[in-house]
Amino acid sequence: MKFGTQKTLILIVALLLAVPTAASANRGQKSPKYVFFFLGDGMSATQIQATEAYLTTFNGGDATVATDLAQSGNRLNMTQMPAAGMQMTYDSFALMTDSASSATAFSCGLKTQSGTIGMDAAKTMNFKSVAQLAKEQGKKVGVISSVSLNHATPAAMYAQVPSRNDYKDIALQAALSGYDFFGGGAFHKTDEETDAAFEAAGYTIVNTFDGIMDLYENPIDKVIASNPVLQDSNAMPYAIDTSNVDRFADNLTLAEITDVAISVLSAQPKQQSEWHWGWHPWTKRKQHKQDNGFFLFVEGGKIDWAGHANDAMANIGDMLDFDDAVGVALDFYNQYPDDTLIVVTGDHETGGMTIGHATTGYSAHYETLLGQNMSFTEFGISVLSAHKAEFGGANFTSLESNSVAQDIMLAYFGLDYSTLNGYQQEKLNDAYQKSMTGANGNSTDENKWLYAGYDPFTVTITHVLNENASIGWTSYSHTGVPVPLFATGVKADAFNGFYDNTDIAKKIASIMGIRQQLPIAE
Amino acid sequence: MKFGTQKTLILIVALLLAVPTAASANRGQKSPKYVFFFLGDGMSATQIQATEAYLTTFNGGDATVATDLAQSGNRLNMTQMPAAGMQMTYDSFALMTDSASSATAFSCGLKTQSGTIGMDAAKTMNFKSVAQLAKEQGKKVGVISSVSLNHATPAAMYAQVPSRNDYKDIALQAALSGYDFFGGGAFHKTDEETDAAFEAAGYTIVNTFDGIMDLYENPIDKVIASNPVLQDSNAMPYAIDTSNVDRFADNLTLAEITDVAISVLSAQPKQQSEWHWGWHPWTKRKQHKQDNGFFLFVEGGKIDWAGHANDAMANIGDMLDFDDAVGVALDFYNQYPDDTLIVVTGDHETGGMTIGHATTGYSAHYETLLGQNMSFTEFGISVLSAHKAEFGGANFTSLESNSVAQDIMLAYFGLDYSTLNGYQQEKLNDAYQKSMTGANGNSTDENKWLYAGYDPFTVTITHVLNENASIGWTSYSHTGVPVPLFATGVKADAFNGFYDNTDIAKKIASIMGIRQQLPIAE
Repeated sequence: MKFGTQKTLILIVALLLAVPTAASANRGQKSPKYVFFFLGDGMSATQIQATEAYLTTFNGGDATVATDLAQSGNRLNMTQMPAAGMQMTYDSFALMTDSASSATAFSCGLKTQSGTIGMDAAKTMNFKSVAQLAKEQGKKVGVISSVSLNHATPAAMYAQVPSRNDYKDIALQAALSGYDFFGGGAFHKTDEETDAAFEAAGYTIVNTFDGIMDLYENPIDKVIASNPVLQDSNAMPYAIDTSNVDRFADNLTLAEITDVAISVLSAQPKQQSEWHWGWHPWTKRKQHKQDNGFFLFVEGGKIDWAGHANDAMANIGDMLDFDDAVGVALDFYNQYPDDTLIVVTGDHETGGMTIGHATTGYSAHYETLLGQNMSFTEFGISVLSAHKAEFGGANFTSLESNSVAQDIMLAYFGLDYSTLNGYQQEKLNDAYQKSMTGANGNSTDENKWLYAGYDPFTVTITHVLNENASIGWTSYSHTGVPVPLFATGVKADAFNGFYDNTDIAKKIASIMGIRQQLPIAE
Repeated sequence: MKFGTQKTLILIVALLLAVPTAASANRGQKSPKYVFFFLGDGMSATQIQATEAYLTTFNGGDATVATDLAQSGNRLNMTQMPAAGMQMTYDSFALMTDSASSATAFSCGLKTQSGTIGMDAAKTMNFKSVAQLAKEQGKKVGVISSVSLNHATPAAMYAQVPSRNDYKDIALQAALSGYDFFGGGAFHKTDEETDAAFEAAGYTIVNTFDGIMDLYENPIDKVIASNPVLQDSNAMPYAIDTSNVDRFADNLTLAEITDVAISVLSAQPKQQSEWHWGWHPWTKRKQHKQDNGFFLFVEGGKIDWAGHANDAMANIGDMLDFDDAVGVALDFYNQYPDDTLIVVTGDHETGGMTIGHATTGYSAHYETLLGQNMSFTEFGISVLSAHKAEFGGANFTSLESNSVAQDIMLAYFGLDYSTLNGYQQEKLNDAYQKSMTGANGNSTDENKWLYAGYDPFTVTITHVLNENASIGWTSYSHTGVPVPLFATGVKADAFNGFYDNTDIAKKIASIMGIRQQLPIAE
């Protein structure tokens, strides 16, 4: 071979390798052994910025000072990840998606209609989720949610049903999933048949603090680790309630349950020790075959519920709980950076939350939020029902003249009636009257805007508190704004860009080395 | 040289080129000769999604059907770009930034306080913008805005002033900028001194349709191409008004002005023909030195103004006008893909706009927007002032009983009073009374929420129309939600991720090969 030929060859090799493509940053990386998929239900850029502003304030900083907001300790784990993208969230027939259809999109890579899980819009065909495909790959699979484990979002990881309300069917499919870990809330609307199905499939339910802690030492292969305390609809309590309400003393945070799940899912099979007879190549191969890593889905589900109710502090509390769970995955990533991928996103925005209000203009006052110590839900359970028993119906006296009512506003929301402006006092008086008497002095159309189906007094308290902080709301439903996505780890760069929510499942499948193209009909 | 050495060399070259790094996609690319920076004032993910939903409807599709929304022709140019990121927009001392401070952030890479342009928060030091640095690099520079050319946002590209209200100072600095093209609106609050300064600096003002069109054939080196027609505060008319209002017949769109600017900025110097005596190496060098490309900044400024007024259709109309201008740059990019970078972003969100409203829940009705054919501003100028003269003050009769007033709602906003619900009719009646009589029946606190400083009747019309379409608003000011950024072309991947608004200037400077680190004090 002559020198000239060699030079040409070098040039060709150089040119081939130098071709700049979007994917080249990840070239040469193998598929990640460990995949985390975090889903903040009802979480968009607004919830994220509000939470960072609150965190800055909570940590003693000022949410109107850039140097405070920028401090790493005042930032969420997710927003500090190197890759970021945005996804469009609309479903087959709605600009404002439902959680079932959005979960189908990012789980199966398929647009479907609101309410449908793992099936096409015609509800005739079933489609596989990335979690099911991960299981087929030999990965262990875990599904965690702070709400019930057969709620629409986690359900899309393992179930195919025409309606999200088919709770029993969804639970039966969970029993047949073969998944290794379920955790967070409990399965909802179960009965003897579903209990028998989980038992027949070999699942163990653990729902005590000690029982769940024991999983670190003694992992159980197919386990349902339900939080020792539940609040509503078999969901975990709002994070804001867990430190203030006695009956939630045994609560585990989403981060703690995530940590337990990692421990269980990364535990080697018990029999593994039998194979440890040396470094013979065959042994290593066998070990490798037995440890394909895991796929862990974690949902912060009550971010959404708080958004529906326009309760910013319950929303932010669960955002922080969710992001702490992301932090646990980051700790794991730091141990196995070459084997781990973490993806964090939301399914849609909820509530039409904004970082600004007409009455506060350019000023923000997140310190006003520090006084709230209870969610709207827990306030209803622990405070308002007793208050209604005392002051409701015939015993009604106006908020203006009822110091006990004003006191509970102050005690649980930090909202001092006497400092509010006349318009706010008027709105609160009106709402308090409706709550206590069930009267409907305004037109239905106005009430749809003011309270929707929520307790008028409670939702008006959070509206006033939130607007004073500079947080606005326009809806009690999901909204249609595109939602950010964050990623770190193996091939995380694939998540940069602006894309459809169905692309998330496709990107995850591609990164995991799934050879078929999503969506995959069963 | 032996064969073995050659093989090693190939291997080394191959390894060097194959190392996967985040930046490798762009490695080997030189700095872009042509840089476009598009800035949608008040444009966030919400404005973008609302505009795509409207465009889908306008094009005969259904904004609640995914397959319609996903069609390329119903998508904006910007959202189809390959790179995307998000930026946090807060300034030194405000969660909700002002346009002056945000423009300083993305122009100079410096956080400053609201109202300040090109100076630090203490207002003691001046900082250079990327446009000024581009000029120092020998690039031609153009600055276009649909609002006045010395408004805060375009001003940050060339001026350093303690207050955005220093219009005269800003204009004088524009005259000394040496920039090659200004276009769109006109300079605002000018006087003899500023006129003399522009003249002394060699600027030609062209503000006729034919004059601006002639720039294609006969480019002028230092030119101010002001739109032949202006609407308010020396700004171009809202796009929605340009086809319906007679006096705007000579209007040039932002896209047309962008196209003229490209032509002027890419025109070779007149003397160039003198050098064309052959392919002598020295000639080529001289040519190269004379053509360093350009940096063109284009602002869609009235997206923000419409957001302040909560007028969704004026907002969307200017979003489309802005995105059309992006389309012109994309045409240029398609001719010079290896030499061009296009960046598109917003400076902050305005109005707390959301894609959902309590009264419409999960349903969207963008078809209701098709009936609006005039901006709130033009309605005030061309319709309401005459209506007030006839029905204002002592001649007031309620909206309920005034068919002429109901007719103008229908004629200019497509809003049929008789089809509205009782609560909406009540709000409109109340607002109409306030507009016509100047009475203030509600408390100031309520009015701050309902109307702010806007005409009560007009802003209530757009509120009702927008909520029927499923668009909500929470503020008349800027809000603090992070804002998306899109990019295509040379080294566009650098804009992927989630970062601070100051990073935009830093990324642009780095890509352009500016060797100093931003911010650069003058």
